[in-house]
Amino acid sequence: MSLEKIRSCPIALQQYPQIILAHGGGGRLTHQLIAEIFAPAFAMGDRAQQDAAIFSLLPQQSKLAFTTDSYVVKPLFFAGGDIGSLAVNGTVNDLAMMGARPLYLSAGFILEEGLAMDTLWQIVQSMRKAAEIAGVQIVTGDTKVVDRGKGDGIFINTAGIGAIATNLEILPQSICEGDVILLNGDIGRHGIAIMAAREGLEFESEIQSDCLALAELVMALLEGGVEIHAMRDLTRGGLATALNELASDTNLHMMVEETAIAVREDVRAVCEILGLDPLYVANEGRFVAFVPESEVEKAIAIASNFPEAGGQMKAIGRVVDRAKSLVSLRGKIGLTRILSMLSGEQLPRIC
Amino acid sequence: MSLEKIRSCPIALQQYPQIILAHGGGGRLTHQLIAEIFAPAFAMGDRAQQDAAIFSLLPQQSKLAFTTDSYVVKPLFFAGGDIGSLAVNGTVNDLAMMGARPLYLSAGFILEEGLAMDTLWQIVQSMRKAAEIAGVQIVTGDTKVVDRGKGDGIFINTAGIGAIATNLEILPQSICEGDVILLNGDIGRHGIAIMAAREGLEFESEIQSDCLALAELVMALLEGGVEIHAMRDLTRGGLATALNELASDTNLHMMVEETAIAVREDVRAVCEILGLDPLYVANEGRFVAFVPESEVEKAIAIASNFPEAGGQMKAIGRVVDRAKSLVSLRGKIGLTRILSMLSGEQLPRIC
Repeated sequence: MSLEKIRSCPIALQQYPQIILAHGGGGRLTHQLIAEIFAPAFAMGDRAQQDAAIFSLLPQQSKLAFTTDSYVVKPLFFAGGDIGSLAVNGTVNDLAMMGARPLYLSAGFILEEGLAMDTLWQIVQSMRKAAEIAGVQIVTGDTKVVDRGKGDGIFINTAGIGAIATNLEILPQSICEGDVILLNGDIGRHGIAIMAAREGLEFESEIQSDCLALAELVMALLEGGVEIHAMRDLTRGGLATALNELASDTNLHMMVEETAIAVREDVRAVCEILGLDPLYVANEGRFVAFVPESEVEKAIAIASNFPEAGGQMKAIGRVVDRAKSLVSLRGKIGLTRILSMLSGEQLPRIC
Repeated sequence: MSLEKIRSCPIALQQYPQIILAHGGGGRLTHQLIAEIFAPAFAMGDRAQQDAAIFSLLPQQSKLAFTTDSYVVKPLFFAGGDIGSLAVNGTVNDLAMMGARPLYLSAGFILEEGLAMDTLWQIVQSMRKAAEIAGVQIVTGDTKVVDRGKGDGIFINTAGIGAIATNLEILPQSICEGDVILLNGDIGRHGIAIMAAREGLEFESEIQSDCLALAELVMALLEGGVEIHAMRDLTRGGLATALNELASDTNLHMMVEETAIAVREDVRAVCEILGLDPLYVANEGRFVAFVPESEVEKAIAIASNFPEAGGQMKAIGRVVDRAKSLVSLRGKIGLTRILSMLSGEQLPRIC
């Protein structure tokens, strides 16, 4: 099947305003969906109808990272992003957190019968844009259709392959006592943007998700020679959960300073109204990096070249010692409390 | 989090007989699910809590295949398999069809609130077994939970990475005029097994799905020096659709002999009752290979070493010429008809 040029309104969309079961049947309509929507957006050409994508690695790309995430966010569109950009950026960021340069993504779609074809089209265009910005190629995919009432519009799975771009062992086990914890910006915006869209909340200024790709920033830090010991993105469960995971993996005590953690005033206000703690709210473009104190200045200088992803990077705390697995938070008036792991579900279907 | 030994009844299962939203929240219950169910089954150890899996390739593994499939089969369990074995074998087979030795799989779970924990446990054990048999490692994963009524028990996405194990260009474009079409066994059992389970049909002898991994057989054919031009597995849309895809990709005319295509009597009988054409019914362990006539004998001899996957391999037709994209079927009494691509949805949610 030949590669169709991108058109603003593909035939699939004209003929079938909604997804029907046969779009997942493997027959003519599945082929039409691939040829008219997926293949042009992802520049797949003839490969789109193959069972798998083939690619060759350079000799220096012999160490790879491999990750997957499914995206079930509700609603599909929110201020600052949508399920498509999320599905690309989330997986790109998981690779970046391992010190890997994202190379290739797969995209698996589970569509609910009745999904508006135009919605699918918009989401796929958003994936295309996000992939372009992040510098990854979506090279293989799959589409399934489930009966009406057995899904929720669209779920997307992306898996990603990245080439490890460093000789450092970027792992929780590499974190040292005395390491400084860097955070790359204000927290809580993604979760609040979702909540606002879900509940129809309106604020004076729209709170936009922080959804973005972190790979370029991370690659610049590594290329700049910053000795990163470990990184973790602050998705489900937020900053508090990410730090707890790392503390628990390594039996380390971490101390963070509440005053150093940026939370926008409007985000804080909404959190208070909704009874949410911003430290536990999901982000999609925020991460912590553990570096020796000597590297902090260099890291922040490099990050400042990436206004959105790294412009606000600063130190928020440090690793105290290896005696106990614990995250402490020193508050505004100097009192210290324990930050525990999220134990329930603060806000479901955030990603 | 330390690697737990496999136990017949993990704590997660005792405490939570059903999946709740918090199992997908990224907090304590998500960690418990990973530590007690996924990590031991897939022998992930400490890696289970990482953002991505890291692996190194050998110098000869510089050309890779990458594929993904989501599995939404209904019902989850059927004669001869379940959604777990299907999710492993389906992706393994997509890699094998490109001449790649499957190395690593990812597993993304979308669980519906209320799914019985024991069902998840059984499916994960089935994935473990299938991965062992196929010789692949499940190295990274993800779990999301959607609200009750917004999913259908469990959907699984697997993505797979394989190392290309041949210098041949195994592609539709490599098919030549005169090539013989080999088929590795009787067709239609997977679709009929699903249909039987779905409709509560009972037959004298149970019809089992043909769900199995084809990678070992394909690797043996390649190692045995069989000059394979192209392969395609006969999943959604069955044999007729696979041949049509290939004919359409290459503008080739193929002629297949109805009498050479094995369909079990019981499968044929059920197809007749249900108004299905076995040529369009899905399989999960069947494929066609295009080889020069001179390679047929060798291929069949090698395949006979794999009783289940290749014991019944035989020639079912050949590529006639390159004038028109067309699949013809010569029937029992010598009349020839055109086999077209499946245009609707013969049987939804078969995989």
